[in-house]
Amino acid sequence: MPRLILLRHGQSQWNLENRFTGWWDVDVTEKGEAEARAAGALLKDKGLLPDVAFTSLQTRAIKTLHFALEAAGILWIPETKDWRLNERHYGGLTGLDKAETAAKHGEDQVKIWRRSFDIPPPVMDKGSEFDLSAEPRYAGIDTPMTESLKDTIARVLPYYEGSIVPHLHAGSTVLVAAHGNSLRALEKHLSGISDEEITGLEIPTGQPIVYELDNDLKVLDRYYLSER
Amino acid sequence: MPRLILLRHGQSQWNLENRFTGWWDVDVTEKGEAEARAAGALLKDKGLLPDVAFTSLQTRAIKTLHFALEAAGILWIPETKDWRLNERHYGGLTGLDKAETAAKHGEDQVKIWRRSFDIPPPVMDKGSEFDLSAEPRYAGIDTPMTESLKDTIARVLPYYEGSIVPHLHAGSTVLVAAHGNSLRALEKHLSGISDEEITGLEIPTGQPIVYELDNDLKVLDRYYLSER
Repeated sequence: MPRLILLRHGQSQWNLENRFTGWWDVDVTEKGEAEARAAGALLKDKGLLPDVAFTSLQTRAIKTLHFALEAAGILWIPETKDWRLNERHYGGLTGLDKAETAAKHGEDQVKIWRRSFDIPPPVMDKGSEFDLSAEPRYAGIDTPMTESLKDTIARVLPYYEGSIVPHLHAGSTVLVAAHGNSLRALEKHLSGISDEEITGLEIPTGQPIVYELDNDLKVLDRYYLSER
Repeated sequence: MPRLILLRHGQSQWNLENRFTGWWDVDVTEKGEAEARAAGALLKDKGLLPDVAFTSLQTRAIKTLHFALEAAGILWIPETKDWRLNERHYGGLTGLDKAETAAKHGEDQVKIWRRSFDIPPPVMDKGSEFDLSAEPRYAGIDTPMTESLKDTIARVLPYYEGSIVPHLHAGSTVLVAAHGNSLRALEKHLSGISDEEITGLEIPTGQPIVYELDNDLKVLDRYYLSER
């Protein structure tokens, strides 16, 4: 039976510093590496080994995937990286300290940017130090300069349908190592979570979330692997 | 213009212990990791960044690729893993200490196995502790149980032609992180080295070898990147 395993990257340097990260390419911390390796060891212990893996174009997700696969003893499985699994683009908030931003714009405004479904943060200034749109990594891509969660979902789901679902229909176990918001997109779709509720769904770092599916990809079960 | 960069994996544990390795999945040593990272830093320093990467299904080559790409700041480029880039299968010699083997079979016999073009070592016993043919990694593959260098070349070159050459024809810079003998196959093909001479070509670990090609993939230049 098909199975989808979601894995949010291990702790990043800016998770630790409490800064808005989005598309900025921050590395995982030592703790983040340990989380990723523990996730891989758990997959191995539980005998839930993925056949194929997907990740974003961001270092913290790619390294999380590699640490996990190595710990699971399956560094050799095919992996595909795609920008559509990237974190939500945080626009002009990228790089800002969350507490400072709240002091400047007010807690309520920051809460709206962080927790509303369809209101994006301010657009990033073209040429800002955090503007990655001219990087070779994003060549040929119409790079967003800000995104609401709705915008993120609108790029994640077509990628899921086009590139991941065929593997699920083939009965594979698929691992997606990605980010809080790109994984929210998948959780919303699979678990049928409302626009209002999805913004409050917390996805812990380094904790494999397993979706057991039937052959029509209807959800049979959803659980944290550490709890089984 | 197209460019092919060959990178032999960094020092492995069995390179260090002087044992026949072949398909056995030995990790890189700390020195091997450092070699791989230095190779990536060199690619970055020289501005020779690959657009796409290929590697084998063996941990020491995959990890070498990942360390190098990370050091070059391009962990996000596409990578493809394929068994046809694996090391030559050393058959019944796999796992044996090279000095002990020479003491047992004689230096001359070992030299024939290591250095002849088309004489394979003894076939590995089915079910031997080093027999990986039943591993999920090699599912669906007609796993060899020994290989001469000629046999290795016979599986590397069709893969090169089918999967790597299209990227070269598109003008890409392609990185192949692999093994002494799978890289010999490519060197023999590109540099037109004879059957007699290829077995003596030493490929150093962790040293990027660059082939500059014209649009018909004729070799314009071949050099060690560290020497430019």
